[in-house]
Parts: sequence; C-alpha cells; structure tokens
Amino acid sequence: MKEYQTYEKMLDEKQYNSLRSELLEENPADIAQLIENVPVEKAVLILRVLPKDVQAAVFAEVYSDTQQALIGLFSDTEIHFIIEELFLDDAADFIEEMPATIAKKILANATKETRDEINRLLKYPDNSAGTIMTVEYVDLKRGMTVRESFSRIRKTGTDKETIYTCYVTDSERRLEGVVTAKKLMLAEREEIIGDIMDTNIMLAQTYEDQEEVARRFNKYDLLSLPVVDSENRLVGIITVDDIADVIQAEATEDFEIMGGMAPSEKPYLKTSVFELFKNRIGWLVGLMILGMGTGIILKIFEDAMLAVPLLITFIPMLTDTGGNAGAQSSTLIIRGMAVSEITTQDFMKVAWKEIRISMMAGVVLAGVAFVRVIILSTGEADLYIKAAVISLTIIFTVFMSKLCGVALPMLAKKTKIDPAVMAAPLITTIVDACSLIMFFMIAKLFLGYLM
Amino acid sequence: MKEYQTYEKMLDEKQYNSLRSELLEENPADIAQLIENVPVEKAVLILRVLPKDVQAAVFAEVYSDTQQALIGLFSDTEIHFIIEELFLDDAADFIEEMPATIAKKILANATKETRDEINRLLKYPDNSAGTIMTVEYVDLKRGMTVRESFSRIRKTGTDKETIYTCYVTDSERRLEGVVTAKKLMLAEREEIIGDIMDTNIMLAQTYEDQEEVARRFNKYDLLSLPVVDSENRLVGIITVDDIADVIQAEATEDFEIMGGMAPSEKPYLKTSVFELFKNRIGWLVGLMILGMGTGIILKIFEDAMLAVPLLITFIPMLTDTGGNAGAQSSTLIIRGMAVSEITTQDFMKVAWKEIRISMMAGVVLAGVAFVRVIILSTGEADLYIKAAVISLTIIFTVFMSKLCGVALPMLAKKTKIDPAVMAAPLITTIVDACSLIMFFMIAKLFLGYLM
Repeated sequence: MKEYQTYEKMLDEKQYNSLRSELLEENPADIAQLIENVPVEKAVLILRVLPKDVQAAVFAEVYSDTQQALIGLFSDTEIHFIIEELFLDDAADFIEEMPATIAKKILANATKETRDEINRLLKYPDNSAGTIMTVEYVDLKRGMTVRESFSRIRKTGTDKETIYTCYVTDSERRLEGVVTAKKLMLAEREEIIGDIMDTNIMLAQTYEDQEEVARRFNKYDLLSLPVVDSENRLVGIITVDDIADVIQAEATEDFEIMGGMAPSEKPYLKTSVFELFKNRIGWLVGLMILGMGTGIILKIFEDAMLAVPLLITFIPMLTDTGGNAGAQSSTLIIRGMAVSEITTQDFMKVAWKEIRISMMAGVVLAGVAFVRVIILSTGEADLYIKAAVISLTIIFTVFMSKLCGVALPMLAKKTKIDPAVMAAPLITTIVDACSLIMFFMIAKLFLGYLM
Repeated sequence: MKEYQTYEKMLDEKQYNSLRSELLEENPADIAQLIENVPVEKAVLILRVLPKDVQAAVFAEVYSDTQQALIGLFSDTEIHFIIEELFLDDAADFIEEMPATIAKKILANATKETRDEINRLLKYPDNSAGTIMTVEYVDLKRGMTVRESFSRIRKTGTDKETIYTCYVTDSERRLEGVVTAKKLMLAEREEIIGDIMDTNIMLAQTYEDQEEVARRFNKYDLLSLPVVDSENRLVGIITVDDIADVIQAEATEDFEIMGGMAPSEKPYLKTSVFELFKNRIGWLVGLMILGMGTGIILKIFEDAMLAVPLLITFIPMLTDTGGNAGAQSSTLIIRGMAVSEITTQDFMKVAWKEIRISMMAGVVLAGVAFVRVIILSTGEADLYIKAAVISLTIIFTVFMSKLCGVALPMLAKKTKIDPAVMAAPLITTIVDACSLIMFFMIAKLFLGYLM
C-alpha cells in the first residue's frame, strides 16, 4: 500500500483509471484504512471508482461513524447497491449502529427480501449466537448426488467461509446432517449425500450467549457450527473466524470492567470524551463513596494514630500491598473462570492453594517490611515492637486479601453477577478497610500502653 | 457424555467392547476430560481400549502433567505408536513440556523422520509463528490438472484443517501460489493449476511473533496463512483456529501482567503453589519497596499531618481515587495498543482526550468529596477550607493520574517494554506518592497558619 497522499493526488488529478487499477491490487481492509484517513468527500469519490462488490467489501470494513458520513453523501441508488451487495450479517451490523432515521432511510432503499432478512437479524439480543452467525450457507438435500451437490455449490457458494461445510436440510429447513467439502471432494461423483453425511451434529441456538459458543469452538476445535431457531430450523452458521473476534471482544470487555469502567463496544479513538467520561464516573464515584468507610475507620482510631505517628506513615504501603495481593488472586480467578479453567466447584481447592501462597508471600513481605522499618526509623522508641506490629499486620492483610480475591469473584459467579466486577478496583477498596482495622487492633494489642 | 464413574465401572467389570463403542460416540475432547478425572492407572486402560488414532487425538488434548504420567505407564511400543500418530505440531508441543530425560526416551521411540521433524519444530523460539504452524498441508505443482490435484488431496489430505487451501510449490519447495478448495471444486477437471492459482500471496515468517500474525488474520479476515523460512521455502501453514488460541493466550498473559504477576503458560489449577508464589512475589516485593517512597513523604509532612488530623483520614480515599482514575486510563491504552487500535503516534490525541475526561471526572469527584466532608465532619474548625483542600487535591490527582495512565504505557511501548507492565499495580503506587505530595502542598497553601 502506498502513502495515502499518493491516492489523494491521483484523485485530484482525475486519474480515475490508474487509481482504480492500483486499488484493485490492494486488500479491502487496506483500502478501508485509506478511506478512514482522507476527508469524507474524497472517500466517496475513491469508493466510486471501485466496482460494486469491492465498494461493499471496503464499506463493511470502515468504522460506523465513517459509514454514517458516507451514507450521508451517497445517492439513493448507491445506498441500494451497497445494502444489496453487503453480506446480510455485515448489513445488519452496520444498520444497528446507525441513528434511527438513517437506518430507516437505508432500509427503504433495500429490496423487501433484504429488508425482511435484516430485520430478522436485528431482533436477536446483543452478544447472542444469532448476531454473529452468517446467514449465507450451502444447503443440500439428502437425495442429491455428489455431482449435483457440486453444481449447487457452484451456483450458491458465494463466500469463502460458507462452502467448507454443507448442511443437509429437509423440506421444513430442519437440519438432518452435515457434509464437509473434504468428504465431497474425496467421494465418488455418483454417491448419495444421505449416505455420506454425518448425522452426529453439534448445534448452537440463536439465543445462546456468544461466549458459550466460543467455548464450544475452543473445546472441540471446531471450524464451524450450525445455528438453529427454537423450532430446530437451520437459520445460519458460525465460523471460527467470527469466534476469534468474539474472543477478542470478550477479553476487551473484561479488561474494561476489571479496570473499573462500564464496557464499551467502540474503539477508544472513536469514543467521544463524554461517553468515556460516562463509562468511568460511575465506578469512580461508587468506589469513592465506598472508600469513605476507610476514613471513618481512621477517624475511630484517630487517638491511636496520633499517639504513634510512625504507624501512619505505613498506612499507604500496607493498603497497597493488600490491594496488590488481592488483585493478583482475583485476576487469576476471574480469568480462569472466563476461559472455563476454573469453576465455582473448585472453590475449596483454589482457596487452599491461595492460603498457602498467602502464607509464603506474607512471610517474605513481612520480613522486607521489618528490615525497612528498622533501617529507616532508627531512634524511634519501641522500634522492634512497632516493626513487629507492621510485619504482623502484613501477614494478616495478605492472607485476607488473597482470600477475598478468591471468594468475591466466585461468589459473584454463583449469584450470576459478572465476576469481572470483583477485580482490583473493588478488591482494593474492600481490602483497605479490613487491613486498617487489623492494623489498629494489632497495634492496640502490642502498643496499648502508648494509646 | 455419561458420568465418569459409569465408564470406570465398565472398565472394572472388564466390559471392554461396550466401553470402546460407547467412547467412540464421544468427542476426543470429552474423552480427554474423562482421562483427567480418573486415576492414571485406569486412564491407561481406558486409552488401550481405543483405536490408535483416537488414542492419539485424546492424548493430544490432556494436560501435560497427565501426559507425563501416562507416558510413565506406556510400553515402548505404545510410545512409538502415540508419537507417530500425533500431528507433528501436537507432538512437538507435548515433548516441549516434558522433562529432558522423558523427552529423550520418547524421541528414541520415534522413527528418524519424525524425530528430525519434531527437533526442527522445537528449535523455533517461544511464541513465534513456527511454534503454532501445522506442518501437514497439501502441496501441488503448477503443471497439475484439477483432476490430478484431487487425487493428490485424496492421498495426502489427512487433517480437516489442511485441505481448504492448497499450496503450489516449485522443486525447491518455494511457494509459487495458492489454490483454495473452493476454486478447485468450481473449476473444470482438466484446468491447469498454474492457470487458476492465486499468486498474490500473504506470508508469515517462521520467526515472526505470533501476536503479529494474529493481527494480520484479524485485519484481513484470513482463514489460513503459509509460513516460509528464511530461504522462502514453505515449511507450514497457520490456520484461523490456531489464531483463536493465540488471541486467548495473549489476552491471558496481559491479564496476568496487568494484575501484577509474571505470566504463566499453565492453567491455574495445574500450577504448583510454589510456582504461583514465585510468579507473584517479585511484583509484591518490588511494589512494596517502591511504595516505601510514600512513607518517606508522609514522614516529611508528619508535622502538617499531626496539626490537622482530619487530613489523615482522607489519605486512603485520595490515593485510591487517584489509583482508580489512573487504572482506567492505563487499562484502555494498554488494551488499545494490544489490539492495534491505538499507536504511540496517537499520544497527543489520547492525552488531550484524557485531559478533558479528567477535568469532568475531577470536578464531579471533588463535588462528592466536598459534600461528604461537610456532612461527616461538622463541628471541625475551618471546615470549608479543609473541604476545599481535599476537593482541590482530588481534581489535581485525577488529572495527574489519567496523564500517567496515558504516558507510562506509551512510553513503555516506545522503549520496547511491554506496556502491560504499566497497569494498575504500578500506576497506583506511583500515583500514591504524587497525590500525597500535592495534598500536603495544597494544604500548606490553604492551612499554612495551622502547621
């Protein structure tokens, strides 16, 4: 791909033929990047030099705000061609992101058949199998020969992803079996589909969660999976490349929740400042209000604090260490459950593991803290006792933090809350309060005579 | 799949034939779960009732500690059959995880050809394209007809994932073109491969990072990609289902690093307590030592603190809010860079976005904190001034935290450090120190007469 300016220059100099032939050498995904990076008025002109099918392929690849801008500059005829050229699932994805008035205008320019199909796709709930499936697939009948099947594939096999598994349906469109392209290629031309098809079929339901479907792909190393509606009629297929997108998107969602934000489907650079603000402020205010509990605890122990000022200087180190220890455990547990490596039934096994780890980590950290207190606070009265208080608190804090890090995500899962909510931000705030209470209780026990 | 006990019982009662026929109805991934959940002595017996190819398929699916236990119970002949039946990439993955003595024993039982191939695969660096590629693929010659190609596929097309794209190579095994199965199926039987092959080929290099390769799959919606060595000879192919695994594994690695741990390739439940401890203790101790800076700052401002005890009670809320605000930004930036939605060139754009968000969030949080101080601390002298100090500090802290959350991951990327290192744990510790300095400086400015 050349520099974007090169193509802009060719456009400005009206070298449409060379622009067209140069761009036809490129992948639609690269042309889409060019479209994103030139002013939209030029983008429309660039699209217009391309053949209809390439136009549609490029259009499907650009972000929705650019799609919206382009639609604003398209004629009704152009909108009609685009919507008819797009794969139906791409068309539905695109229209879903448009404001209602624009969506209406686009659908008005589609044929009735396309409109009905798109409306059907738009009805599936977010993140369901129905929203990621491809509705173009090859369907065969059990009575066909291999030779007849080949000629049907020749007629209907439009997209690369749709022909490698063919679906055998009855007159009601209910799934009877599957035949892979491999089997067809290796079979004799006169064999009957009903004899070579595989009837042991894995299925997905339209309303099933896409994460569940992704897990099945992962576990069984599937390349594609047929999707049926509630009456068991075949309505589409999901292919492994869609699953790669699902895995990517689900991980991003978890990163966002675990980073203390409401998840967003848009890429960062395409999200407005106000939207980003809205996604974040809820968590920030909520955690702040929750964090006020810590203030109340400090207020209660104010006398103890003021009597032994050295203790105060260790508060941030103590709460941070607790937060870090808890975050480690909760991160592993949340991720483990997300990829189905850990289930809530493993609670005892996991808790016992974390208890032993917390003991080892607690002792090491307590040792480091002890040495640090001794070295940096020489001259302080009762230094060894104070150092012991801090070290002991660390052991208890790490223990409690790791246990919270295991228990809270698993409890969330059990009660159908997204475990990702129980990640570092929330754990840190909860652990803060607990570790301070422990700190002052241990201090009172050892240094009570000072307070 | 029935309960694991059912199969164990059939084994105990020596009903080998029914056990065999029942298990052959199941998917190898499910049989592998059974193998994981029965004592290893029984697992071996269960494997032995299965045909060699199913044995290998199941063996490839179990975790490496179970593989090792099974190998210990296998005879040399059994080891020979397993290693020869496994796909070469699965065999290499399996041997890589074995202790050296066992690996040697296994390789000694393989044919020379298999051994050489496996040794070649084992040489590729971790996470390189070479380690995820499949070495079984269909290669055609340009002079072949479609009919001849079909009979070659019939002879060599062993695995489902290898036949949908065929590779045309010259006598030196250099890649000349690709032909998809679709093209073959749609072509006339007497057409020549050289005439229908696509010569515009995307490639991967054996030493390329798997994340880079995954990005290319994502961007261009690829189903497979040929892998060539430094002399441009075709050595394997990568298929999209391997890419789904890469995406999953890379996300897990980032979760671990961002949770403040050294990443591990093993699933949680299969990792020993000591290993988990080792992965975590480095970060915990490092962050604790770094966090001691905060203690030093508090020590410096000890007089100010003791003069206005109310301030102390707000320290945890302040540092937590800063940490949370910074974690939100860094999470989005790190993830955005991992999925190539954000590059370091976007720094100014991103920083400007975050500055505006931090202003909005800072003002809201400051308002909440102000009200909270007024309500909960009535009766305190100079209450409004103290509340103002806290609110103002929050505004500055959020501003600075969000800026750190953008700058540190991008700086890491620029200096070739993994940006995931600059996630919540480190950001929180850095922001703690900065926010405390700000807190006391603002307090001195407003409440100087008290200190």
